Amino acid sequence: MALIVQKYGGTSVGSIEKIQNVAAKVKARAEAGNQMVVVLSAMSGVTDGLIKLAHEISQRPRARELDVLMATGEQQSVALFCMAASEMGLEARSLLGFQAAILTDRMFGKARITDVETARIQELLENGKAVVVAGFQGLDWDSGDVTTLGRGGSDTTAVALAAALGADVCEIYTDVEGVYTTDPNVAPEARKLGCVSYEEMLEMASLGAKVLDIRAVEFAAKFGVKIHVRSTFTDREGTMVVPEDQITEKLIISGVAYNKNEARITIKGVPDTPGIASKVFIPVSGAGIVVDVIIQNTSADGKTDLTFTVPKTDFDQAMDIVSATASKIGAAEVLGDTGIAKVSVIGIGMRNHAGVATKMFGALADENINILTINTSEIKISCVIEEKYTELAVRALHDAFGLADDLTPKPEDVV
Amino acid sequence: MALIVQKYGGTSVGSIEKIQNVAAKVKARAEAGNQMVVVLSAMSGVTDGLIKLAHEISQRPRARELDVLMATGEQQSVALFCMAASEMGLEARSLLGFQAAILTDRMFGKARITDVETARIQELLENGKAVVVAGFQGLDWDSGDVTTLGRGGSDTTAVALAAALGADVCEIYTDVEGVYTTDPNVAPEARKLGCVSYEEMLEMASLGAKVLDIRAVEFAAKFGVKIHVRSTFTDREGTMVVPEDQITEKLIISGVAYNKNEARITIKGVPDTPGIASKVFIPVSGAGIVVDVIIQNTSADGKTDLTFTVPKTDFDQAMDIVSATASKIGAAEVLGDTGIAKVSVIGIGMRNHAGVATKMFGALADENINILTINTSEIKISCVIEEKYTELAVRALHDAFGLADDLTPKPEDVV
Repeated sequence: MALIVQKYGGTSVGSIEKIQNVAAKVKARAEAGNQMVVVLSAMSGVTDGLIKLAHEISQRPRARELDVLMATGEQQSVALFCMAASEMGLEARSLLGFQAAILTDRMFGKARITDVETARIQELLENGKAVVVAGFQGLDWDSGDVTTLGRGGSDTTAVALAAALGADVCEIYTDVEGVYTTDPNVAPEARKLGCVSYEEMLEMASLGAKVLDIRAVEFAAKFGVKIHVRSTFTDREGTMVVPEDQITEKLIISGVAYNKNEARITIKGVPDTPGIASKVFIPVSGAGIVVDVIIQNTSADGKTDLTFTVPKTDFDQAMDIVSATASKIGAAEVLGDTGIAKVSVIGIGMRNHAGVATKMFGALADENINILTINTSEIKISCVIEEKYTELAVRALHDAFGLADDLTPKPEDVV
Repeated sequence: MALIVQKYGGTSVGSIEKIQNVAAKVKARAEAGNQMVVVLSAMSGVTDGLIKLAHEISQRPRARELDVLMATGEQQSVALFCMAASEMGLEARSLLGFQAAILTDRMFGKARITDVETARIQELLENGKAVVVAGFQGLDWDSGDVTTLGRGGSDTTAVALAAALGADVCEIYTDVEGVYTTDPNVAPEARKLGCVSYEEMLEMASLGAKVLDIRAVEFAAKFGVKIHVRSTFTDREGTMVVPEDQITEKLIISGVAYNKNEARITIKGVPDTPGIASKVFIPVSGAGIVVDVIIQNTSADGKTDLTFTVPKTDFDQAMDIVSATASKIGAAEVLGDTGIAKVSVIGIGMRNHAGVATKMFGALADENINILTINTSEIKISCVIEEKYTELAVRALHDAFGLADDLTPKPEDVV
């Protein structure tokens, strides 16, 4: 008997019929003798509808209340799912964030899971019930407030539950068949990867591959949770996301990612004195905004320019905060640019192979794409470029690293 | 400084604009120096939409999961309201059933409030916040399950909060201007009552007047909560619902009520042995179904007929239960009739006046309306008739007792 955590995204539960189909899938696995914990997202469209409603009231709705509103989407999914399960003879019980209990910090809209109290889930499992947990939502224990984990948060809910319960596998069901070498909508010759390491997946997720939420991968890596990314609509194996040392066939480059969801902010004429960067970034991170690439140009006349990127969704707020700081520290002006994109190549094999950067810059230069900034880690190289070149750059890099060839690892390459 | 609990129904918060209007009303009262606790229903149409969704899955959705689904309606209202309040500078905090904390028993779909833990609300009030509580929902403390109180449950939430907080008044806002001598849609000459006693209101509510939920009135009577029923859309005084001894002008009859929401069940050929009635009714009440009028005809050949009424919404379930019992006890057959209605006259003055029943039966006879059953209490007389005669009967009784004359008590008749 295995303990399986499954997560189904919004398109997988996007209608009553789809909910019934998912319930049938869960029932089949339960009847095969497995203990089932199912995490659901809101039905597709519901979350956007709720955001629209909130925006009819306010351009920046109160974060605490927005979370209360948003949490209703998943609450509806789990209730409807359990009714459908019950109709087909599967005993299922819904649990909301506060019941599950998914405990988080109090950063509304992007809360982090701090603990999972599994007593209630385990009791239900022992009584032969399927447990259906509302994804994306949690509870700040101190205040008793409802929180949400942000977009993609249901993945994190599922992985956190799998970790806390010691599940055998965490299956993330989505509308694609797994993790691809790049976005097939951009490069149709993209191939499905049979397996990928946490480290690569983490880079892919943080660099824009939308198949898995980055915090979910972090959680999985931290607790060694084996993730299986697969499609709701086929029974084919998807992509196993596992520790690096379980993968026998390592590619130099396993994927090309892109991200159009960042914006660039430049503060011009910043006095180049010690501590100035912390004066700029402390209020930004204090507002829960994640700063990505930071570049500080060399100083001239005691002044410097400071450039960094933030998620586009936080751009307005970040501009307000940074503008206030700029006038306090006597900077000349603040410029914002939302017309940028980041393209990246990722691969654990890069650790042992030179020449990846050279090949990447060459491929972009061949297409006359100007590189605005460069950022590297042990297993990835990222370039910020003008947004309009994104697709061209992705295809050029996918070709240059030969990712269309059938060299990608198979599920059986996992030891 | 007064502590005011207000409740706004679904039509009062039926759109973003209406929510904003209500927020403005609450803000005005808060700025006048009052502590405000606001209870909201779901936006009109939302609850019905959710029921429809559930019924796409099942004719009888799992009660536990239906409550989880239904609770999202009020959750959305309170979140949107607090966003709107915040936009206009009123600091408001939403609380869900489990946060408020509205503790109930575990009778899903019609849970009863057992306790209200006001610590969190009082802390928020002391910090100058308006507190906005999701009506209709609660928490079963033992299981941690979400419950709902049934239709009209938000009234009960408001009165229970008013009682627990020792509020000065509980204002129930609705789309009518108060409590009328009868339904103005049936008898256009109906008059608004300036005040009415708990006892009368209780009879009116239980007999079909929809302006206030019966459990809310029971709660108010038990804890002496002064209710003010009034319209969201005018500033005119509505109807004060108060203890009988606070009303100086007592009418013999203060209202005519009707109820088309009951159905009649008859078990024919029941063996007339001791204990047979309890065998029939224990499983019915065990399912949480409230039986109203019960009539047992005189026995013939050791067999009798047993007739009783149940809410139409519970009719199918009651028929199933009673049919199972009937075959067990060897009864001949079970008949159901959903084509009935109950008309009633109500008044505390009836206690000291004879001849009310005679006048009522005479008025119905004058219209050739056959009386199927009669049921009386100290302050009301009810007759079950064929449903098609309902409106005719109501108008006839309203006329016969002179309720169109301007003799109804005024708000100033409350001492």
